[in-house]
Amino acid sequence: MKNVVIGQSGGPTSVINSSLAGVYAGAKAMGAGHVYGMIHGIEGFLQDRLVDLDRYLSDPMGIELLKRTPSAFLGTCRFKMGRIEGNEERYEKVFEIMEKHDIDTLFYAGGNDSMDTVKCLSDYAAVHGKLQQFIGVPKTIDNDLPVTDHCPGYGSAAKYIAASMKEIIRDNESFGADKPTVCIVEIMGRHAGWLTAAAALAKGDDCTGVDAIYLPEVIFDMDRFLARVEELAKTKRSIVIAVSEGVSLADGRFVCELGDASSYVDAFGHRLLSGTASVLCKLVGRKTGLKTRAIEFSTLQRAAAHMSSLTDINEAYMSGEAAAKAAAQGMTGMMITLNRISGEGEPYLCGCSAYDIHAIANVERHVPADWITKDGCGLNEKFTAYARPLIMGELAPVYVNGLPRHLVMKELYEF
Amino acid sequence: MKNVVIGQSGGPTSVINSSLAGVYAGAKAMGAGHVYGMIHGIEGFLQDRLVDLDRYLSDPMGIELLKRTPSAFLGTCRFKMGRIEGNEERYEKVFEIMEKHDIDTLFYAGGNDSMDTVKCLSDYAAVHGKLQQFIGVPKTIDNDLPVTDHCPGYGSAAKYIAASMKEIIRDNESFGADKPTVCIVEIMGRHAGWLTAAAALAKGDDCTGVDAIYLPEVIFDMDRFLARVEELAKTKRSIVIAVSEGVSLADGRFVCELGDASSYVDAFGHRLLSGTASVLCKLVGRKTGLKTRAIEFSTLQRAAAHMSSLTDINEAYMSGEAAAKAAAQGMTGMMITLNRISGEGEPYLCGCSAYDIHAIANVERHVPADWITKDGCGLNEKFTAYARPLIMGELAPVYVNGLPRHLVMKELYEF
Repeated sequence: MKNVVIGQSGGPTSVINSSLAGVYAGAKAMGAGHVYGMIHGIEGFLQDRLVDLDRYLSDPMGIELLKRTPSAFLGTCRFKMGRIEGNEERYEKVFEIMEKHDIDTLFYAGGNDSMDTVKCLSDYAAVHGKLQQFIGVPKTIDNDLPVTDHCPGYGSAAKYIAASMKEIIRDNESFGADKPTVCIVEIMGRHAGWLTAAAALAKGDDCTGVDAIYLPEVIFDMDRFLARVEELAKTKRSIVIAVSEGVSLADGRFVCELGDASSYVDAFGHRLLSGTASVLCKLVGRKTGLKTRAIEFSTLQRAAAHMSSLTDINEAYMSGEAAAKAAAQGMTGMMITLNRISGEGEPYLCGCSAYDIHAIANVERHVPADWITKDGCGLNEKFTAYARPLIMGELAPVYVNGLPRHLVMKELYEF
Repeated sequence: MKNVVIGQSGGPTSVINSSLAGVYAGAKAMGAGHVYGMIHGIEGFLQDRLVDLDRYLSDPMGIELLKRTPSAFLGTCRFKMGRIEGNEERYEKVFEIMEKHDIDTLFYAGGNDSMDTVKCLSDYAAVHGKLQQFIGVPKTIDNDLPVTDHCPGYGSAAKYIAASMKEIIRDNESFGADKPTVCIVEIMGRHAGWLTAAAALAKGDDCTGVDAIYLPEVIFDMDRFLARVEELAKTKRSIVIAVSEGVSLADGRFVCELGDASSYVDAFGHRLLSGTASVLCKLVGRKTGLKTRAIEFSTLQRAAAHMSSLTDINEAYMSGEAAAKAAAQGMTGMMITLNRISGEGEPYLCGCSAYDIHAIANVERHVPADWITKDGCGLNEKFTAYARPLIMGELAPVYVNGLPRHLVMKELYEF
């Protein structure tokens, strides 16, 4: 292993920096020379924007702070390489910069779209007889990558969502001498409901839990939704509902399209959905006269590192190390996967391996239908058995002046 | 001291339960018999809904969990006693229930409106020669009670806001290979900007801080706001702005009224403001073409006990104990105040005393004009010197099954 480079791509998470730390430590352990970071992912790499990570991570305290720092330490991007045909110059540029810095392996941490970048680059290398290696490191709060049991980033987002949901339920329940209050909480997830499903984890000995959970996997029926709220209001004074930003009607329209929310399209061509909770609150208010409140977790669900899952942090780190090891073994065009080794009812145990990127890129994994309750608005014990281990454990932030300390890269501010 | 009762009122906070714990422990130490809790504040008390707190708090573990439980353990209400004239029956009912349970002191934890309840009840007792005592325990994330240096609840909300703001800034800064993104974060505070000002605490060695802070204390000038965003966009790719829900224009209209946000009026007759960030994002997008994102902290800023300030928890507890002591000394018609004993530059030190409720009820305290920077959209070092000590320290949640454990009162669910 000569020099290597790692980039972070797509929406940030609370633990994508643990993956970075793992790649750094793993690559060093495998004998890498320089471990470079791409500033703003492949987009910055194409402009030869690199940083030598020794500057920040050769000190073990840097590694510890990095594990506690949310968002992409290196900066991220939503840049697509595009099809090889017609973009040969761009592809050649990647290899040119790799050669310039004597880089033999490129690691890329990201979700679906970012794994497509790994696939395209490794395909290009294969076709053109280039020897550089390309390894994907899974990262997405959405938990929608296939093959892997779960994705680094999901556990921490799920923990934040479940913990915040408990706090919202406590808040909503404290009122209630007067008429019922309906609180609708909107959670990220365009097509996969993994994050919204995490609201189910709030339920426990000290919490009645949420009253309904609406995933994008289930067609949203407005009449049944309103009927359910009215039914709940007969016996409960606090009603808390979790809803995915991506729920849609039978005719294919997103619920948020029923409102006036401006629809924004991101650089990957995805529409930015939001306003679902607000649309539903307005409808509930109009139909039932009940008090309503719409809450959106917004970017906090992917950035609240102060409420990270230690399991998630450790697995993100482990997947980074595994990526370095896979590269040392000569692999390319692979993504690291997390494999649950433990069987049902056994103590949770998880390992890593590598899997062909072609089976992963651009494939979305959804919440299995048999994990959703028959009424379509809840999760059963199969889901909680799956998700509970992923939110276990905490890593205390390092507090300075009353606030969690982050590791920040100076080069991110130079442009 | 015979038996006593305590109620919680108004919007919950992360530490109103620490005040409850302090009153309980203090009253027991002063020789009280039963320490009762009102279920849903004075509204529930009028229906004789009481709970003997020994049931939950005689075990010290109960006290510890209570300190870590957000929102009002006893349930809260937004109920006004109303003027004495015309409501004599309601006032008599309070005394009747107190006599029935041999209660000689009523403690009430709350903000401005709740202190009015304490004032009215103590006035009624004075006029009618009744010997029962009434003591207010300060509680409000808004920090707008006069006389007291600050209010229990504020420090924890400020800590949550500053910590979350750091995470939002990290998230927003990680993008930025393309055009600038403007993130506008809406923070609670109808007329007083204390909470929004807390965004200033995010700035530090590891954080560039927010780019502008708009308080309700300063008239909001839309043209200057838009000009500032355009100016920032010339040199910055990440722009994060904190704005109070209560900012208003020179003509008196709230900024949120410029949008279509439904305006809801609560039981105290206050309009529920929201949608300010969303209105501003739409205007910024239209005017500048920049990418925008609106975030509302919503109820999490008052309920996120997992990010409480230990200083705040301890002071809330202390103010509860002080209330019990004031009652034992025969006081009535008073509110406990927090008094900063330390002078400028000295290590922070804070004590308690009691103050005439008539000088407190219905008076709002604002952020002093000379703590706001000359451009009207920032806070100077006077504010940070004031606020920094209030967010110091942490009390680790007790995690069970991966989530913070709360103490929950069974009786809250019986109706």
